[in-house]
Amino acid sequence: MSDEKKPLSHGMKTRSLTRSHGRLAVRPSLKPRELMSDTPDIAGAWRAKVITLFPDAFPGVLGQSLTGKALQEGKWALEPIDLRQFGTGKHKDVDDTPAGGGAGMVLKADVVGQAFDAARPGTPMDQSRWPVIYLSPRGKPFTQAMAQQFSKAEGMTLLCGRFEGVDERVLEEYNVQEVSLGDFVLTGGEIAAQALIDATVRLLPEVLGNAASTEEESHSNGLLEHPQYTRPAEWKGRGIPAVLTSGHHGNVEKWRREQSEQITKERRPDMWAEYTSGKD
Amino acid sequence: MSDEKKPLSHGMKTRSLTRSHGRLAVRPSLKPRELMSDTPDIAGAWRAKVITLFPDAFPGVLGQSLTGKALQEGKWALEPIDLRQFGTGKHKDVDDTPAGGGAGMVLKADVVGQAFDAARPGTPMDQSRWPVIYLSPRGKPFTQAMAQQFSKAEGMTLLCGRFEGVDERVLEEYNVQEVSLGDFVLTGGEIAAQALIDATVRLLPEVLGNAASTEEESHSNGLLEHPQYTRPAEWKGRGIPAVLTSGHHGNVEKWRREQSEQITKERRPDMWAEYTSGKD
Repeated sequence: MSDEKKPLSHGMKTRSLTRSHGRLAVRPSLKPRELMSDTPDIAGAWRAKVITLFPDAFPGVLGQSLTGKALQEGKWALEPIDLRQFGTGKHKDVDDTPAGGGAGMVLKADVVGQAFDAARPGTPMDQSRWPVIYLSPRGKPFTQAMAQQFSKAEGMTLLCGRFEGVDERVLEEYNVQEVSLGDFVLTGGEIAAQALIDATVRLLPEVLGNAASTEEESHSNGLLEHPQYTRPAEWKGRGIPAVLTSGHHGNVEKWRREQSEQITKERRPDMWAEYTSGKD
Repeated sequence: MSDEKKPLSHGMKTRSLTRSHGRLAVRPSLKPRELMSDTPDIAGAWRAKVITLFPDAFPGVLGQSLTGKALQEGKWALEPIDLRQFGTGKHKDVDDTPAGGGAGMVLKADVVGQAFDAARPGTPMDQSRWPVIYLSPRGKPFTQAMAQQFSKAEGMTLLCGRFEGVDERVLEEYNVQEVSLGDFVLTGGEIAAQALIDATVRLLPEVLGNAASTEEESHSNGLLEHPQYTRPAEWKGRGIPAVLTSGHHGNVEKWRREQSEQITKERRPDMWAEYTSGKD
């Protein structure tokens, strides 16, 4: 990686001017950091609260790799909330049969409501600052633009569904946004929640290095990624396109752009139509 | 499920006729089952082979709930393959800088090729029987129809990407399908792989009980789910729509259908357009 680190010669002053350079920068103060909070990084960090029947499923994959490293470093925080503890009766029931009949079970409004209440402390009511999300195939399809929006919030609360769904009244009462991972059915919302968190966390300042910036741009420009190659120069009789090893930067860029356009046109006519309409 | 088991009187011939009736049924033999394999259920079960740099991330959420129970019962099998073991040099490198320059790192064809070779034993070459998939935002968007198709295969091999991508030549050489979870960027393919596996496994025979069948139908009919309600009858001043407690089955069905249509029209004009065009 050609990741040139510039020396940080201007101290705290520089940090507060450059929001994009990290979470610590948003709380400049004359007080020593140690006096502000016991866990200063986490206190100011983006936070995901996840209401789930499977709290052990977290952090799961999010505890690995770059998201896991960032979690350990306090660049973001994760708080699973066990829905079961709010269950009613001897068996801590969280669901009941659907009104009007039908298969499956519905998560109860009173139970889920208590979980939302438990998640509320420290979260602003403004949904742009703290989205409250139910992961459901009925929701708005999740996109990179939504991930970018979520990464600018202070955190989010996610409800992972199971069974047939959740009592509609609790979604109304808590002004819950429904977000869908895609047009497929999952056993529960946990994997979808992890996808949302992963896509969001990697956009937080300092979670990824420079390595990610290009990838990000590439996806944001509305085209699919061009093919990539690396050493060895020949493998199983297959070479690397000559232009890529020509050293001619302009030609490389041109070839990549053409490949991206070609692949997008072939594979995703919907994206291509949007891309070309946006150019008018 | 009204899954009538037919007697397996025709030996191997029957096997191909009753493919959909359950996993144990697919290996009729004159030999007692115990002699065929130490783990008879797993030997015939649908199997996911996952090539990843984070084998510890599996089964993750898939080890919980219904998918976890089915995994323990041998109704499906999971085989993570650690990509790192095929790395080259002292540091077991799996990636290198992109030919033509640019940020990020590209997974090497020779390394990934060895992982595909290691995954191959016991897998048919026919992609309809054993899809080989690379999870990538460039891929075909994952849908319920694809999950249904995958669940009819004998298993699948999934490559989880990281970094900028993977050398294009290995995708060509191994005839790899690219599948995308959606139009967003994840840190890696592991969460996407888990989503694909979850959506597929829940469609395998006997993994879910009756509870899931209606949900499934509901999603498959091309409309979003209607709202659901359950006890208590009143909660925070909010009641349940009277029709649902009327006991009139026909009216309940009509109301649900209307709600599904209404919600689909409002939230997913794309699905609505497809739904109405399909009715002509």
